[in-house]
Amino acid sequence: MGKNIKRIISEMTIEEKASLCSGLDFWHTKGIERLGIPSIMVADGPHGLRKQAENSDHMGLYDSIPATCFPSAVGLASSWNTELIERVGVALGEECQAEDVAILLGPGANIKRSPLCGRNFEYFSEDPYLSTQMAANHIKGVQSQGVGTSLKHFAANNQEHRRMSTDAIIDERTLREIYLASFEGAVKEAQPWTVMCAYNKVNGEYASENNDLLNEILREEWGFEGFVVSDWGAVNERVAGLANGLELEMPSSHGNGEKKIIDAVKNGQLTEEKLDQAVERLLSIIFKAVENKKENAIYSKDSHHQLAREVARECVVLLKNEDQILPLKKGGNIAVIGGFAKKPRYQGGGSSHINPTRLENFLDEIEKVSGNQTMISFAEGYIIDSDESDESLINEAKEVAAGADTVILFVGLPDRYESEGYDREHLRMPENHVQLIEAISEVNKNIVVVLSNGSPIEMPWIDKVKGVLEGYLAGQAYGGAIADLLFGDANPSGKLAETFPKVLSDNPSYLNFPGDGDRVEYKEGIFVGYRYYDKKKIEPLFPFGFGLSYTNFEYSRLSIDKNEIQDVDNVSISVNVKNTGHITGKEIVQLYVKDVCSSIARPEKELKGFKKVELQPGEEKTVTFILDKRSFAYYNVELKDWHVETGEFDILIGKSSSEIVLSDRIHVKSTVSIPKKIHRNTLVGDILSDPILAPIAIDLFEKAGEMNPLINGTDVESDAAKTMAAMLKNTPLRALVNFSEGRFTDEMLIGVIDLFNSQIQK
Amino acid sequence: MGKNIKRIISEMTIEEKASLCSGLDFWHTKGIERLGIPSIMVADGPHGLRKQAENSDHMGLYDSIPATCFPSAVGLASSWNTELIERVGVALGEECQAEDVAILLGPGANIKRSPLCGRNFEYFSEDPYLSTQMAANHIKGVQSQGVGTSLKHFAANNQEHRRMSTDAIIDERTLREIYLASFEGAVKEAQPWTVMCAYNKVNGEYASENNDLLNEILREEWGFEGFVVSDWGAVNERVAGLANGLELEMPSSHGNGEKKIIDAVKNGQLTEEKLDQAVERLLSIIFKAVENKKENAIYSKDSHHQLAREVARECVVLLKNEDQILPLKKGGNIAVIGGFAKKPRYQGGGSSHINPTRLENFLDEIEKVSGNQTMISFAEGYIIDSDESDESLINEAKEVAAGADTVILFVGLPDRYESEGYDREHLRMPENHVQLIEAISEVNKNIVVVLSNGSPIEMPWIDKVKGVLEGYLAGQAYGGAIADLLFGDANPSGKLAETFPKVLSDNPSYLNFPGDGDRVEYKEGIFVGYRYYDKKKIEPLFPFGFGLSYTNFEYSRLSIDKNEIQDVDNVSISVNVKNTGHITGKEIVQLYVKDVCSSIARPEKELKGFKKVELQPGEEKTVTFILDKRSFAYYNVELKDWHVETGEFDILIGKSSSEIVLSDRIHVKSTVSIPKKIHRNTLVGDILSDPILAPIAIDLFEKAGEMNPLINGTDVESDAAKTMAAMLKNTPLRALVNFSEGRFTDEMLIGVIDLFNSQIQK
Repeated sequence: MGKNIKRIISEMTIEEKASLCSGLDFWHTKGIERLGIPSIMVADGPHGLRKQAENSDHMGLYDSIPATCFPSAVGLASSWNTELIERVGVALGEECQAEDVAILLGPGANIKRSPLCGRNFEYFSEDPYLSTQMAANHIKGVQSQGVGTSLKHFAANNQEHRRMSTDAIIDERTLREIYLASFEGAVKEAQPWTVMCAYNKVNGEYASENNDLLNEILREEWGFEGFVVSDWGAVNERVAGLANGLELEMPSSHGNGEKKIIDAVKNGQLTEEKLDQAVERLLSIIFKAVENKKENAIYSKDSHHQLAREVARECVVLLKNEDQILPLKKGGNIAVIGGFAKKPRYQGGGSSHINPTRLENFLDEIEKVSGNQTMISFAEGYIIDSDESDESLINEAKEVAAGADTVILFVGLPDRYESEGYDREHLRMPENHVQLIEAISEVNKNIVVVLSNGSPIEMPWIDKVKGVLEGYLAGQAYGGAIADLLFGDANPSGKLAETFPKVLSDNPSYLNFPGDGDRVEYKEGIFVGYRYYDKKKIEPLFPFGFGLSYTNFEYSRLSIDKNEIQDVDNVSISVNVKNTGHITGKEIVQLYVKDVCSSIARPEKELKGFKKVELQPGEEKTVTFILDKRSFAYYNVELKDWHVETGEFDILIGKSSSEIVLSDRIHVKSTVSIPKKIHRNTLVGDILSDPILAPIAIDLFEKAGEMNPLINGTDVESDAAKTMAAMLKNTPLRALVNFSEGRFTDEMLIGVIDLFNSQIQK
Repeated sequence: MGKNIKRIISEMTIEEKASLCSGLDFWHTKGIERLGIPSIMVADGPHGLRKQAENSDHMGLYDSIPATCFPSAVGLASSWNTELIERVGVALGEECQAEDVAILLGPGANIKRSPLCGRNFEYFSEDPYLSTQMAANHIKGVQSQGVGTSLKHFAANNQEHRRMSTDAIIDERTLREIYLASFEGAVKEAQPWTVMCAYNKVNGEYASENNDLLNEILREEWGFEGFVVSDWGAVNERVAGLANGLELEMPSSHGNGEKKIIDAVKNGQLTEEKLDQAVERLLSIIFKAVENKKENAIYSKDSHHQLAREVARECVVLLKNEDQILPLKKGGNIAVIGGFAKKPRYQGGGSSHINPTRLENFLDEIEKVSGNQTMISFAEGYIIDSDESDESLINEAKEVAAGADTVILFVGLPDRYESEGYDREHLRMPENHVQLIEAISEVNKNIVVVLSNGSPIEMPWIDKVKGVLEGYLAGQAYGGAIADLLFGDANPSGKLAETFPKVLSDNPSYLNFPGDGDRVEYKEGIFVGYRYYDKKKIEPLFPFGFGLSYTNFEYSRLSIDKNEIQDVDNVSISVNVKNTGHITGKEIVQLYVKDVCSSIARPEKELKGFKKVELQPGEEKTVTFILDKRSFAYYNVELKDWHVETGEFDILIGKSSSEIVLSDRIHVKSTVSIPKKIHRNTLVGDILSDPILAPIAIDLFEKAGEMNPLINGTDVESDAAKTMAAMLKNTPLRALVNFSEGRFTDEMLIGVIDLFNSQIQK
């Protein structure tokens, strides 16, 4: 049917074309019966299907049909398991087919600039490479089922505060290396059917009408083939949006958007070709959806729930395990404490909020998994809906805890603490949760804390507990997954996809979040997440990439297949990892690259590869990574391209970003030379450091009888001469006229510059 | 004679006018005999006169005539004594008169953005208020003697690295509040005869041809009446410079600059009026210099040396005094250790390097001051010209130290570590200095370290010594001053004018210093110095404003004369300070202002007043400060003016920036309203927070049957409703068209916006 699109367009009126460019209602595109163009449905994701029931609220938040609630993106990312997230995608695709949803709105690939962003639980990571890999595999999974995705929110939607009016001011290099890179891999590798543009402005222009983002970068550079849909309500000026690459306005503007498009075509403000191009992109996807529709599709709620449990187990990160308190032995006397134990917090608020097909709670699952020999007692400890401590609940919890061998404490952030729509104001848990931990620690030293939260929290209580499991918002089977992990039926294998700072003020965006008025400047630049903590030498509470296991892994035999490559070559790197413990486990091997010496500021290291491997006790595997130019490159704003500076790079293998276990070095040679032009403001030092120009310059200056003692450096022994030589190096050629007592004239300056330029252009 | 300037100009040829606009040679302006225009001499300062001997080097660095070397600016600033620096200025003026120098090139008021800047010793502070106050009083002193000054380097010359080509990218608010503010007070209060423009670019334009800086701000806004001189070699395009406010090119461009000016006037590129204006400014100062010339002036080298010693005593900061090791008792057995003890480092390298009239060394002065009963032994400890430890010197020093009651250790930074012309690369002392401290600490616990350095150093050894005197580069009488302080003949009264970080990476500019290539972005913004450490909650090694005394001071009775003022009012604040110890001392009372709640990011506190008071034992004085609008204001880039937000402000009295001893609160009411305009992208939340518009909006929305449950907040109890309400607040008016199922149309939107605007403009 795809081949008929051009014919269909030729038969359409301007009005019909324009009508396709905005939604029918909140969740559907428009159909045109006479041309056989169907209406398709889109629905919120990304960690479950949120298909809204008819006749619900106008903001589109309430009352969705039941669907499997998988772990939120923050959890999925902590698995670092690309195959697993692809399987989640497949399951999501199946549910969409069953519910007649053509496009699932997700995944979200925005970078976690600040832990305060209220929507961080919907995003993967602070690192663009990890984020884009997880997004790509999510998309592959969903789309393998003939259901589209919508990679969102493109771009730089990194906060909820004033999200529809704020202007994200980001320098070009940072935008490329961090914020766009998080989308780039997913677009290139997984070709999402649609991309959803963000609400905010980026460098002065709305993301919804930003030619650079939507046309130049997304389509021309990255080769995106689908259509761009607005985030719900993100259209500013409809015609400018269309002209700059936004095809579909959502939700319906009730004729308003269409009218503006029609007027614009009629008055020549917009060419009909541009409109045709938009319609072609829309129809391609609409027909693709129809072609891929599986009639009467169904899915197994049971098996999806089992998958949700399997996935949740891999998302949980073991942050602390003092005295190997975990795994717990089955049998004995265990106190389960905390309101979350019975009423788990397992997902975040807003457009991704799923109506789960079923819901496991921690207490029940612990009872099931721990077996009959285990005595389980429970105390609520705090009221979920309040921040204030309830003395009687605390006393009751202390009593329960005092009599137990071990206490499992369920705390974290209640729903109201984080949601789409607003940002957090601090990184603290509710006071009553913290006070509960402290109270329990007075009566029992064997405490395991299980955290339910969508983003980092401060842990002033960390020294008072022996075990911490960070489960994030692990979906409807979070309860069972935790039970499995607590009692060793599963081995924790998640690692943090974000840094946990000790205090909020350590975060790189702290001075500039959420901005002044409608302007938020990303002044930390490329130093986001671990790139900042590394560079600033700030010790985090838990570093990026960190996570413990019940077994141990040893690394050996790092090898690089070449010692020296050109930037256009690939290089293969392998390393052995061995399970030296007594139980099966999975390890996430992380590869970072460090530019040893660079002419521009670069991070201490950047993640350029990771692999999750399962190992039986005693088993050893070889993990291989292929690095390419991009692995060594930074974005050069002058070249408008990724660029590798010739030099040494360290290949670092880490168990986390701060625990590098093996390293080796490789020399990479650039095949690109940056054009150079000498001008009157070129510094003497820059001339003298150029291998071609230095001898000419020294010769010239000697002839002019000037400064040769400084230039050839023979007299640079005294401190004053050192000062003078440094000053001369920082002198532009034009100032030599002032410093030569008239011997070096302005005419000579012009001649010298011409000579230099002719030499370097040879 | 001044009144004849216009007549003289009318008699000048274009060639003569142009000739006046560049120097005769390195140190003189041109004279024109037929018109009675004299040539005047300028010479480097600022902490001493550096009048260069004839026939020296072309960079103008070597061989100057003897002059009194006072403490460098970093030391003078540490005195926080405005009267004292004015007396230094008077002395400098006297020396200039005696040496026939018309203008002393200084003081330097650049902000210490990074402790790495090689020229920091020539600058006062990281705080613009302290810096500009010290600069103003320096200028007042010099100019009181009929000698001009040149306030430099205007502006944003905060590093030596590529200083002649780098472009300082600074947002407008930061430029105003930090970098320009450091010049502003000095220009307004002290009217320097000349201002010296900087080498670098500021936001894309050379400071030497920057109309905003040289005309709009310096002259129009601040009322500067003198002429602008280029830093030596700072002229880029001579005609652009002149057109944009740079009158004098230095040094001579040997006819080149004149020729360009003449051509430009002849071909109409530059108006003759502009040239006349420049000549008028030049002649005004030249004639003023001549009028103020004191024939046969002389000065007393002895009394200036005594002044240098008095000043140096006030510049030294007592950083540590464990077990009250200081002051030392005269008598006993003292080891003096360190090469600096005999060969002191007392000033920095580059254009400010003075040939002192005499030079005290520490060892001799300690012998003199400590009296006959004191046994003094000496060991060199390290070789000044090397970084490497010399084992035999260390062993010798250990032996000497082992037998002493107390060790005085002279360490710091050798000349090569900091100078004009290049920046430091780290904050460490030479390894041999550090190793010496560690070695000595093994044999003697009573160590007093005396530091000679121009800017902060890291002190990993701080716990191994009991006393630390930071003397900076305290000039030719540094030796005697230290001896006076060590033995209690004087009481330390200096406080740090800059933060000492624990490690370099804690510094706010760390990620962006000295920039990439020729671009340095001031991404830390207004958070420079303590403004950053405060906000980021980073504990420094020693905070801004910190310094100990041999006596104690107690503060009481903070009082504010009004509880509530308008921003146009002044307010008087007084506080009592009492010497509760047993010896006379001076205390620096510091007043900081904190904006309690602001709509834009502001520092935790800012210095807005300081006073140094001398108190006899038991004596109490009342110190009074007058605050004005500027004390509470930030620079509003929309208003292009200083602005005070209505609200509460804390008045904080501190012994240092991190030791606030008293505080009170005042309400300041703005008399300026920021113009507001409602548009289609105005957020619903902004409408609802406007007292005029909120009731109208609620009424309107209710009529439209939309969203009223959210807007009036009655349904915001559930977490989902909280999310929805937050989302609505962040929704622009135009998006209501999408979220109202067609009930709110685009036409209604336009009408509502008009209505809102008419209401707020009433």
